[in-house]
Amino acid sequence: MAPTLSAPRLANLLGQSDSTGPAYRDLADRIRLLVIDGRVPDGSRLPSERALAVALGVSRTTTTRVYAELRDTGLLHSRQGSGSIVRLPLSASNASSLIVSAPETDTIAMTFSAPIGPPGLARAFEAAAAKLPGLLATTGYLPDGLPALREIIAQRYTDRGLPTDPSQIVVTSGAQGAISLLGRVLVQPGNRVIVEGTSWPHAPESLVAAGARLTSMPVGETPWDPEALAAAVRGAAHQAAYIIPDFHNPTGAVMTDEERGAWAHELRRNDIVPVVDESLRDVNLDGIELPPSFGTYDDRCVIVDSTSKTLWGGLRIGWARVPHELVLPLVQARMNQDLGTAGFEQLVVAELLTEGGQTAAAGRARLRANRDHLLSELATSLPEIIAPCPGGGSSLWVTLPERMSSRLVASAARHGLTLTPGPRFFTSPVPASERHLRLPFMPNQDALTEAVVRMRRAYDEVTGGSASTDNSPDSRDTLELIA
Amino acid sequence: MAPTLSAPRLANLLGQSDSTGPAYRDLADRIRLLVIDGRVPDGSRLPSERALAVALGVSRTTTTRVYAELRDTGLLHSRQGSGSIVRLPLSASNASSLIVSAPETDTIAMTFSAPIGPPGLARAFEAAAAKLPGLLATTGYLPDGLPALREIIAQRYTDRGLPTDPSQIVVTSGAQGAISLLGRVLVQPGNRVIVEGTSWPHAPESLVAAGARLTSMPVGETPWDPEALAAAVRGAAHQAAYIIPDFHNPTGAVMTDEERGAWAHELRRNDIVPVVDESLRDVNLDGIELPPSFGTYDDRCVIVDSTSKTLWGGLRIGWARVPHELVLPLVQARMNQDLGTAGFEQLVVAELLTEGGQTAAAGRARLRANRDHLLSELATSLPEIIAPCPGGGSSLWVTLPERMSSRLVASAARHGLTLTPGPRFFTSPVPASERHLRLPFMPNQDALTEAVVRMRRAYDEVTGGSASTDNSPDSRDTLELIA
Repeated sequence: MAPTLSAPRLANLLGQSDSTGPAYRDLADRIRLLVIDGRVPDGSRLPSERALAVALGVSRTTTTRVYAELRDTGLLHSRQGSGSIVRLPLSASNASSLIVSAPETDTIAMTFSAPIGPPGLARAFEAAAAKLPGLLATTGYLPDGLPALREIIAQRYTDRGLPTDPSQIVVTSGAQGAISLLGRVLVQPGNRVIVEGTSWPHAPESLVAAGARLTSMPVGETPWDPEALAAAVRGAAHQAAYIIPDFHNPTGAVMTDEERGAWAHELRRNDIVPVVDESLRDVNLDGIELPPSFGTYDDRCVIVDSTSKTLWGGLRIGWARVPHELVLPLVQARMNQDLGTAGFEQLVVAELLTEGGQTAAAGRARLRANRDHLLSELATSLPEIIAPCPGGGSSLWVTLPERMSSRLVASAARHGLTLTPGPRFFTSPVPASERHLRLPFMPNQDALTEAVVRMRRAYDEVTGGSASTDNSPDSRDTLELIA
Repeated sequence: MAPTLSAPRLANLLGQSDSTGPAYRDLADRIRLLVIDGRVPDGSRLPSERALAVALGVSRTTTTRVYAELRDTGLLHSRQGSGSIVRLPLSASNASSLIVSAPETDTIAMTFSAPIGPPGLARAFEAAAAKLPGLLATTGYLPDGLPALREIIAQRYTDRGLPTDPSQIVVTSGAQGAISLLGRVLVQPGNRVIVEGTSWPHAPESLVAAGARLTSMPVGETPWDPEALAAAVRGAAHQAAYIIPDFHNPTGAVMTDEERGAWAHELRRNDIVPVVDESLRDVNLDGIELPPSFGTYDDRCVIVDSTSKTLWGGLRIGWARVPHELVLPLVQARMNQDLGTAGFEQLVVAELLTEGGQTAAAGRARLRANRDHLLSELATSLPEIIAPCPGGGSSLWVTLPERMSSRLVASAARHGLTLTPGPRFFTSPVPASERHLRLPFMPNQDALTEAVVRMRRAYDEVTGGSASTDNSPDSRDTLELIA
């Protein structure tokens, strides 16, 4: 099913490493991570040992040892005549623990950047339950969303200066549900789509699944250099641009007023649809003054949002605010995707969006305290890491002193801490990606303290070049599911 | 965005008509239906009046009047130099009523073949609420499903003779959520997929959206003629086959033991993955003895199922039971689709699947009474329609005395009854499709009685050739969303 990976492509994905340990072990670890987080799809055929050695500029002996190590741990299967096929080591007994880090284990997961349910949520479920009979008297199919919720969401946009009719709101299964649906509707195979140099990886991946060819913006001082955009769109027609202008995931950056104006102008001039992810806009931890919504700069905007970061991801409620002519195509695509989102959670969200904001405020307060705690623990125990304080969002975007992100993540997994390697957030491979790490401040403060202790151990292991003796697959092959 | 429709293709979609009324009105009505139900995508460019006249074998004057009528009702927009573009007439004021038939109107919807919530459901919601705190203490992301629910589902398969490990179950947003996800994982663009000659339309449509080329089985005495399958796969390699062997939607047919054996053998011999939709298997209204699950004939089977027909579609809970090697690819695809299904409804379904089956039994009893009531009303008031009694499922598949299905549906909409035209359920256009209609026995018995009264009026209008004077767009342009 999956394609053959060329040696230059794999070398590109592997990037450069500053590892001081054995090269074969470092390479094996990094290939394992690529497989686990899906950048090398399960079932892919790897290039020959000889070709990979050439592409990486290492000896043939090294790549032979790399493949031998991967075979020993069950990740690589070599078949006569069909090359070396990557296989995630999945057995009935460990599949579940691979997929979601089992809460009964001691492992701390810092891959999902999303909160546990805030205190007010149980009350909102109760209030929604009182309205359940009305819903049960219908077939329950809501491909466009619960009318009452669509009205509340539209009114919020109107109140914030973006006049919106309820019919422009399509309720989806989270922001990701909206993005994948928009991919189906906006993107024809081969269309080009602009993405930031770093991004929330599932968004560009779902656009690629819809057939898009991505144009990555350069990674620089700002994710939104207007001149870089102008240069990119000069060369080729683009269909859409997916951006996260407010507390950008993963960097935490906020698009300035000038950048918004310049981007809106350039996108409109080139007939490119802005798909604007505002799912972090309300996770404004320090109450900073944000420029107006990108939607106010360009009325062709598609805005996607969700309650996953502000309230709870387990609700699986998001939405798209779209120009009128996109509503029906989205709903028709929805019928072929999953017929709609559960109505009960839409009742719950309708409660939470009209209660006055105290549940969201409590969630922000907890996040703020967690952020400050994690920053303080890092400053004390891991001063080698540069960790700027983001004004909003739910994760830190830290800089490591050398290119070691994937090695650090592999080592941390052996110490009971799952992290997402920095390169996962880059939309095109650049060597600097190995100097970054996203650290969600999501588990509770005790867990964050312990996480930093384990990160310190992993850091020492990686920088000391000491090889771990614990190679148990249980602790290493945790599937990388991030949110 | 949408493609140009060639005149032969449109003529093919329109099929033949036995209309005795004005040809232009009949053609305009049928084109409108094609647009509303999505077979002609919103934004498509229609062929020229001249080309369509040639393809249909009618006069140029007729097609000119057809396009004029479509323009008058706002469905067709003719632009200088860019031809005639189809546009669903969507305005802020009527979008909502287009999308879901508003409950406050008098219209009876017989498009969704799915029940309202059965009596035991509210109790299951309460029981699930007691378990909510455990869920709220997590991030709520369950890309593979709630472990407890996966265990219960796996045990049910094991109990029914199909030994299953919980890790083989991936919980999805309904059966359609499973089918669209499987399309992403199993189908590469250009792959061929076998489908029955009639089917649940959103399934083949989502496979086509994933790039599949469909091979339709012939429509005959049975949807599963083994010789037809053998002939179809002899000519070209196929990747998968999507079938509904138990109370087939829409025909109600049940695949015989012999057919199961023959199909399983032929599919295995040709390395074709069976994707088996069992979402109606438990809607066994007369308690007839079914052959064993198709899964027992071929262990390479992917089985999809859902609680939408047995319990309530508003839960949006379904699942896929897959061979081990498909689990991780499905979960990875899920992360790019919508990150998973809401956990609360999974708690509700876990309650309902372990309570002993009384809620599902109550739902079946209601369905059975509705089925018998609809059959009796039809026999009394519309004896021209041949309506066999299906042993299970949630709809009748009736035969009309002439090719009139689309005209009958258009007329019924003017009388306040929304139906789905027969051709919608055919996976390739055949003239006989206009002699069929799917009639869900879903609203309550009073509504079914009134529905048959309205259908009688529509039938008389169509067979009398009398043109309706009520052409209000409100009653005609109800978007065709079916389930």
